[in-house]
Amino acid sequence: MSVGKLILVGSGPGAADLLTVRAVRALQAADVVLYDRLVTDEILELIPSHVERVFVGKVAGRDADATQGSIHELIVSLTRGGQTVVRLKGGDPYVFGRGGEELLCAAAAGVTVEVVPGISASVAAPALAGIPVTMRGMSSSFAVFSGREAASGIGEGIDWTAAARIGTAVFLMGVAALDEIVIELCRHGRDEATPIAVIEAASRDEERVVVGTLSDIVARAQHVRPPATIVVGRVVDVRGLAMSLHHFRERAAYPTAFEAEVRV
Amino acid sequence: MSVGKLILVGSGPGAADLLTVRAVRALQAADVVLYDRLVTDEILELIPSHVERVFVGKVAGRDADATQGSIHELIVSLTRGGQTVVRLKGGDPYVFGRGGEELLCAAAAGVTVEVVPGISASVAAPALAGIPVTMRGMSSSFAVFSGREAASGIGEGIDWTAAARIGTAVFLMGVAALDEIVIELCRHGRDEATPIAVIEAASRDEERVVVGTLSDIVARAQHVRPPATIVVGRVVDVRGLAMSLHHFRERAAYPTAFEAEVRV
Repeated sequence: MSVGKLILVGSGPGAADLLTVRAVRALQAADVVLYDRLVTDEILELIPSHVERVFVGKVAGRDADATQGSIHELIVSLTRGGQTVVRLKGGDPYVFGRGGEELLCAAAAGVTVEVVPGISASVAAPALAGIPVTMRGMSSSFAVFSGREAASGIGEGIDWTAAARIGTAVFLMGVAALDEIVIELCRHGRDEATPIAVIEAASRDEERVVVGTLSDIVARAQHVRPPATIVVGRVVDVRGLAMSLHHFRERAAYPTAFEAEVRV
Repeated sequence: MSVGKLILVGSGPGAADLLTVRAVRALQAADVVLYDRLVTDEILELIPSHVERVFVGKVAGRDADATQGSIHELIVSLTRGGQTVVRLKGGDPYVFGRGGEELLCAAAAGVTVEVVPGISASVAAPALAGIPVTMRGMSSSFAVFSGREAASGIGEGIDWTAAARIGTAVFLMGVAALDEIVIELCRHGRDEATPIAVIEAASRDEERVVVGTLSDIVARAQHVRPPATIVVGRVVDVRGLAMSLHHFRERAAYPTAFEAEVRV
């Protein structure tokens, strides 16, 4: 039996029609889909019924590295059994998705790997909330950090000097660390009047946006739950500016339900 | 006559099947598509034949701000004439796309604006070349800069201290400024042995990848032409590692031709 292949697919921030056409086709070509906790129900509905689906998300209380190890074992055994395996991840597979580890694990096992980039919440969550990550005259750069690493001692840690100096700083998975993020940015020279937005469940029905400054966002955003995207910088003001013009619609008027069918 | 609307749509790095489903549907719902120089022919083929298409890209030798001004005028006159205008931009509309200016211009004119995020080359070009922008143990952050601003005196300029300290630094539109980028990164403390990749025409047939270090990339990449994505950091080594395993295929085996039809 010939060896199968692994397709690392980004599913975007949550709305099914924010998958790329290539991602939809990968789901249709799959024998098995291994999916994460961040993949929404409306995206799972795109998987044809004959395709096996396996939940492999990290679960609170279980060791994340052990879970990742079993994902690697599953990828190797399924692909070496001849199957086409889609590894479906929220956002983009290579933005904090541990996709790089899966690439190397599969390659080391002799398995062909393809990557289908996805819409990352780092840019899309602000965009859907009316906040461009770059804006002429305001910010000509943006950086993306893992909020999980804002808590000390985890991973490589955040270079707060860089984070405080960059035009637009975005933090994914940062709800639990919002107070540390604010404290460290201010300690490293960011003005506490800097605007900040916390965007919960971007692109989904339950999307919620909280805006403030570094000095008051912790109080304002205390009810926000994951998944959320945090964006810091002057560009946050574009949202208020557009809304004050009374014509910017906070929620896209474009239908979000996935009505399209894609034929290969 | 009622006022139309503006849909800012990201077309991704070039391959037509890297458009999102929502982007394809926006093209189908449009009366007029205003498109940029970076939008490829295979993407233009997705526009239904009854939809008017207008090239509004910046042209060398013509004043970019004047061109942007005429785009704004066009957006306002077409939408106020009742049309649904899709503004189709390479990559993501808010990553150096001047999309924020078009959002505010339209909002000020009483025009509803929707945004359809696109796959940005900043993450996708490295990914398609086997380079994850983040990788556990190597880099847990990435920043995106405009290579055009690497030449002194343009725009807000690049904060080189931040650029040199970030785990993974990505430069878009940076081919002409590659030597300045290398010099400034080294001057601000980045080791000249740091790996760097220059990815030309990501996701297209003519895609080409050049890899080196900060000390030799200028010589190695002298034949690279725009559009190209520059990525700096240890994660560049993942490509070599995967390829040395002899199983990573540099070009996706997944068909890149756009064969799918999307029905709304």
